[in-house]
Amino acid sequence: MAASNGSTSDLKSTFLKVYSVLKSELLEDPAFEFTDDARQWVDRGTCLTFNLLKYIVPGKLNRGLSVIDSYKLLKEGKDLTEDEVFLASALGWCIEWLQAYFLVLDDIMDNSHTRRGQPCWFRVEKVGMIAVNDGVLLRNHIPRILKKHFRAKPYYVDLLDLFNEVEFQTASGQMIDLITTLEGEKDLSKYKLSVHRRIVQYKTAYYSFYIPVACALLMAGENLDNHVLVKNVLIEMGVYFQVQDDYLDCFGAPEVIGKIGTDIEDFKCSWLVVQALERVNEEQKKVLYENYGKVDPACVAKVKALYNDLNLQGVFEEYESNSYNKLISSIEEHPSKPVQAVLKSFLGKIYKRQK
Amino acid sequence: MAASNGSTSDLKSTFLKVYSVLKSELLEDPAFEFTDDARQWVDRGTCLTFNLLKYIVPGKLNRGLSVIDSYKLLKEGKDLTEDEVFLASALGWCIEWLQAYFLVLDDIMDNSHTRRGQPCWFRVEKVGMIAVNDGVLLRNHIPRILKKHFRAKPYYVDLLDLFNEVEFQTASGQMIDLITTLEGEKDLSKYKLSVHRRIVQYKTAYYSFYIPVACALLMAGENLDNHVLVKNVLIEMGVYFQVQDDYLDCFGAPEVIGKIGTDIEDFKCSWLVVQALERVNEEQKKVLYENYGKVDPACVAKVKALYNDLNLQGVFEEYESNSYNKLISSIEEHPSKPVQAVLKSFLGKIYKRQK
Repeated sequence: MAASNGSTSDLKSTFLKVYSVLKSELLEDPAFEFTDDARQWVDRGTCLTFNLLKYIVPGKLNRGLSVIDSYKLLKEGKDLTEDEVFLASALGWCIEWLQAYFLVLDDIMDNSHTRRGQPCWFRVEKVGMIAVNDGVLLRNHIPRILKKHFRAKPYYVDLLDLFNEVEFQTASGQMIDLITTLEGEKDLSKYKLSVHRRIVQYKTAYYSFYIPVACALLMAGENLDNHVLVKNVLIEMGVYFQVQDDYLDCFGAPEVIGKIGTDIEDFKCSWLVVQALERVNEEQKKVLYENYGKVDPACVAKVKALYNDLNLQGVFEEYESNSYNKLISSIEEHPSKPVQAVLKSFLGKIYKRQK
Repeated sequence: MAASNGSTSDLKSTFLKVYSVLKSELLEDPAFEFTDDARQWVDRGTCLTFNLLKYIVPGKLNRGLSVIDSYKLLKEGKDLTEDEVFLASALGWCIEWLQAYFLVLDDIMDNSHTRRGQPCWFRVEKVGMIAVNDGVLLRNHIPRILKKHFRAKPYYVDLLDLFNEVEFQTASGQMIDLITTLEGEKDLSKYKLSVHRRIVQYKTAYYSFYIPVACALLMAGENLDNHVLVKNVLIEMGVYFQVQDDYLDCFGAPEVIGKIGTDIEDFKCSWLVVQALERVNEEQKKVLYENYGKVDPACVAKVKALYNDLNLQGVFEEYESNSYNKLISSIEEHPSKPVQAVLKSFLGKIYKRQK
């Protein structure tokens, strides 16, 4: 495989080639005696081709590709060796695998029907609750990949610690999301900005924003303990990203975002409802309490009308520009220009996104 | 806490004290900002007290206690320091945590109703599918414990690799069990001794037999690559243990084993059905095919009558004594007396068990 240092589409095709290599290795893993049936299940039916390719390849692969992007920027534009491209891609795929694991299990917990227009894995015939174990297997592929390709690296143990810590944080975020929704059903007053922030930080920011850059830093020989500022900036970026998500769920164009948002119906602790709760008068509060979390389109329409009355679009625009400015000044505090470039590149990918 | 080198009940009470320490640490983990609700969920409702204590403490804690037992034997009876007892106990608890994670998820996949006489966690009110994430959290507590107490040890990375490999093997075993049952529903001829062995080896033996001893070996400064014989013996022991389990499910006394076996009703790839399939004539085969996997007690009775006609109790007794003899001679091939003692002690705990 030629080292790819060229265009984005080159990068993506190299990244996809690495996927094929990793997949073949997993299906020949000597730690498990595969039968033909087992190999077929893993290969065809489940995790690898089905979940990963179906869920992720149509996605933007942003998390995975960011490892390579970030590593390149840390190398200040020097051409990467084939080996470096392979390793950065493998770490990128580990992050995509982590995401696939969370998505397969989240769909079960949310009792979802489709993901990216396809039935959720657990809804496929003959799969059902076996999907729980398939999710677990996806997660288990990460340490297999790390062991095979990074065991001899001085940063191997840091990689293991990093993936473990981020998984723990994400599962903890998922827990507070689940129990908040449970509590919220009885009492909307539990939905506060601090609660929203905590859920988003743990459930999304670490695995979507922090870990790709942290992987690149480890590959570049950095000690993550020296990069608290980087972590904090990326967490802020993750929070901003999720606020955009919440905003687009209600105000985005369904044909652009590729789905019809249902946060209002689902009683989600969305940034919008939290902002609304901070701004309502007594009468509006009543409307919100009576209509939030109902599937009836008339109720949803009343909530949306209230969001408009409260000018939440304006509130969001102000939030967006404030966040951007704060992020840029935090980034510029960083002593290293290459690290600044990594963070600015990440921010550039999401600022004012429409999908 | 005083170092415990005394009786089994001392050992168990020390072990339980270590549990309290680990639990408190997890609820104050700085990697996650616990809210009161979240701490309560983890502490009271879910994983920690509920699942672990309910599922495991009434159990025999054999897996966990074996780490301490084994480590003591490797130290050839020398008194352990307080610190050594604590560390061996912490590793023992990691194994119990691993088991709790598997049980919580297995119950969901098997759609079970009770475990040790209590409703399964996912059946508890308000829990439901949140149990999937609670299972994941249990699993995530293992690397938290390892990092807190073993990060500075020379064998830290080997511990991480060990837990990762064993989890991968167990989940792979669970996968072949699940897909074999799926295939088996259409075709009992898929149930063969080699299939049974593979499921048992991966699904049970690594995490129930290999990992406790492997943890003790790592603590004693051993390199696991030099202990392939130990691994092989423990896997054989694990297979023997599961064959006993399959046997007791049908022939054990319910008041002794504490449950009423349902392997026949559940179409399980049990050692008994595999042995029966190897021995049936055409007529008996028809009886087996027509009655295996049915909930109707008359069908179950026909299968049991067939097992008696085929003298599967005698077949089991011969298997049991052969396995024991083979295990003892393998163990005596090992050059180290302390390692022999570890393996013999483990075997002694299960040989001819009635529950």
